[in-house]
Amino acid sequence: MTNGTVITMDPHGTQIPDGAVAVKKDRIIWIGPMDDFSSENVPKIINARGGIIMPGLINAHTHAAMTCFRGLADDLPLMTWLNDHVFPAEATLDQEKVFSGALLACAEMILSGTTCFTDMYLFEDAVARAAKQAGIRAVVGEVLYDFPSPNYGTIENGFEYTEMLIDKWQRDPIINIAVEPHSPYLCSPDLLQKAANISWNHGIPLIIHLSETEREVRNIQRRYGKTPVNHLANLEILCPNLLAAHCVALTEEEIDLLARFDVKVVHNPQSNMKLASGIAPVPALMEKGVCVALGTDGCASNNDLDMFSEMDTAAKLHKVNTKDPTVLDAATVLRMATIESARALGLSQITGSLETGKKADIITINTSKPHLTPMYHPESHLVYAARASDVDTVIINGEVIAENGKLLKADIEQIMEKVRTIAMEIRTAQTK
Amino acid sequence: MTNGTVITMDPHGTQIPDGAVAVKKDRIIWIGPMDDFSSENVPKIINARGGIIMPGLINAHTHAAMTCFRGLADDLPLMTWLNDHVFPAEATLDQEKVFSGALLACAEMILSGTTCFTDMYLFEDAVARAAKQAGIRAVVGEVLYDFPSPNYGTIENGFEYTEMLIDKWQRDPIINIAVEPHSPYLCSPDLLQKAANISWNHGIPLIIHLSETEREVRNIQRRYGKTPVNHLANLEILCPNLLAAHCVALTEEEIDLLARFDVKVVHNPQSNMKLASGIAPVPALMEKGVCVALGTDGCASNNDLDMFSEMDTAAKLHKVNTKDPTVLDAATVLRMATIESARALGLSQITGSLETGKKADIITINTSKPHLTPMYHPESHLVYAARASDVDTVIINGEVIAENGKLLKADIEQIMEKVRTIAMEIRTAQTK
Repeated sequence: MTNGTVITMDPHGTQIPDGAVAVKKDRIIWIGPMDDFSSENVPKIINARGGIIMPGLINAHTHAAMTCFRGLADDLPLMTWLNDHVFPAEATLDQEKVFSGALLACAEMILSGTTCFTDMYLFEDAVARAAKQAGIRAVVGEVLYDFPSPNYGTIENGFEYTEMLIDKWQRDPIINIAVEPHSPYLCSPDLLQKAANISWNHGIPLIIHLSETEREVRNIQRRYGKTPVNHLANLEILCPNLLAAHCVALTEEEIDLLARFDVKVVHNPQSNMKLASGIAPVPALMEKGVCVALGTDGCASNNDLDMFSEMDTAAKLHKVNTKDPTVLDAATVLRMATIESARALGLSQITGSLETGKKADIITINTSKPHLTPMYHPESHLVYAARASDVDTVIINGEVIAENGKLLKADIEQIMEKVRTIAMEIRTAQTK
Repeated sequence: MTNGTVITMDPHGTQIPDGAVAVKKDRIIWIGPMDDFSSENVPKIINARGGIIMPGLINAHTHAAMTCFRGLADDLPLMTWLNDHVFPAEATLDQEKVFSGALLACAEMILSGTTCFTDMYLFEDAVARAAKQAGIRAVVGEVLYDFPSPNYGTIENGFEYTEMLIDKWQRDPIINIAVEPHSPYLCSPDLLQKAANISWNHGIPLIIHLSETEREVRNIQRRYGKTPVNHLANLEILCPNLLAAHCVALTEEEIDLLARFDVKVVHNPQSNMKLASGIAPVPALMEKGVCVALGTDGCASNNDLDMFSEMDTAAKLHKVNTKDPTVLDAATVLRMATIESARALGLSQITGSLETGKKADIITINTSKPHLTPMYHPESHLVYAARASDVDTVIINGEVIAENGKLLKADIEQIMEKVRTIAMEIRTAQTK
């Protein structure tokens, strides 16, 4: 990658105005100014033409296959939305549909500059296969809960399915497995502790929805006499490899607990806004040193997987919420979507920043567009003005996956057509 | 325009799944299903290829030439941002720079599906000329305030300049003039009343910033013993052709006053969020029957002029703010950005919806993209998933201004280069 402003997101915040990044096989082997760049022994040069060269974005929480339900139902009370639309639609899913929906999600994510995502859903082996086929790095895990799953049946089989995923994908260069109990309200204490044990045994992330709504907090308090974070603390599963999505409804004491146990948090501002769940106390979490990643959530409640618009929303939402225009500045939000998301997934040794020795997960941004002109500060543009459609080249694990905004490995028309067919079935089922 | 889902935004909310729109000269002469469409006597057919055909978006509040300051300074306390960055940068402006900045803004707006915008700034004749050259419909007015203006000097000259604009542009098919006193805090009661008289004499909009922050409310209360809306009521200038931008800090009594006098309001959610101004009580205003339009504000505080992302933010922000996921549904927000914005500008007889006899201000959206697949409800996609970059064709006043996402009339490279040069001067001045 040559002729671009290199935004490394390394610990020093290094930026190189006219720089280049050299990749060999799957790794970054050199980063520096163009003046020092030698094209000798470089098999392929990608010219950023004055744009930005940066680490790919990391979507730290989504449900990829929910692309099938994009815009199926909006603007409804939560329970109507879930019971009358999402759950009936989900009941029609199978492995093949999840594969198609996830493949569409991968295409959308890659084209919008996301090089790694974390998924929680049903039939996750199909999601892993879709990510593998699309060439995008992923952390996937089968959702676990107390009631029978359309995929694995009883929870015992759910644990087995998770162990199968771990075993099957353990040597894959881009697919990683996590253990994913749904939430304190859909998982018994026993399920949560068993899931935690599996994650500890394998040293992999434990991912959960936590304190998404006030309603959930009341529910958990009624059942266990404790707020959700205190409930997990009591079960002794707060730990550094726990990744908690949402964390909207937290007390100060719970923020302290999350910080003390180095629990990672994923912020999903657009979904929390659209479902009217509330606003996570992100500045307060950061002040206590909690690692806060960024995610889109599923696109049934967003309705896209666009990390650029998610960054923009995150930066603006907390300013108005705290009445302080200095919180979540552009650099901070960009870290959330890159290196902090990588840390949250336990992948900061290999991705999330451009550093020599790391895997080559790199994107370029075409800044020669009216809405990115002029450019005083690249980080400001990335958060407040750039769009998903400004992504030019996408390299994941050293492989060029997209160029000039087009996918190289996938037949996008065919993927879209498959999901349109699935949507037709869902629509027919819902109008019956 | 053929082969598209036609979203008319007419009073009945008519949508035609496989429809066409016929244009003759500057007007829409026919709208109907493809089966009834005849291509006889149609000089040029634009095929929407299964996408969406809809009225162009109307940006009801911006400061176009502030593209020159896009991303100049962010994430700062309001007074630091204004005094150390925006005001010094504005002091370097002249007619020519405003023309270039506005032309860049017009390019950005057209490419993102905006066919009409309202502007308040200095050197507005240059903005009118830029809009005219770009071919975009505009409502422009010179900003009026108590202190001397770099453009017109004393306020007497400001009124004369406004009269000159009215006279010069009165017969133009796409340029409209408004009278634009800046705000109650920068305009004396005398200035406000004189401005209102000019607007009434000519039957044109009177546009003002109103109650943007709590700080402004305190300021006006200290000076006049009244809240801003009550202050304007006392001056007897509340009226149906008054368009008030922001309206963030309102009491219930003030909402009632705005409703009683049919004052129009422009909501600018992203700017209000970024500057931490607050959240306008849009659902409450609508409940009282106030016409609420949508705008981006200037791109120094946004940092773009993208009405698609503004719609998405508006829809989501009020849901989380009211904790009610049913407020500002997709259809409502789409009306804000089209027909309600047209009403707010006094232009609903000619634009804001696709209806026979109205001026042809039409855009098409390419929906054959991963992030717009599948499509259950077009309105949902337009608000929650579509991006500025999905705009294909833009027709304004019957003229094709953009096709396949490219401007037909303007040399975009040259426009960007001019603004880059201006930015270089601004940067040099600021680092001195």
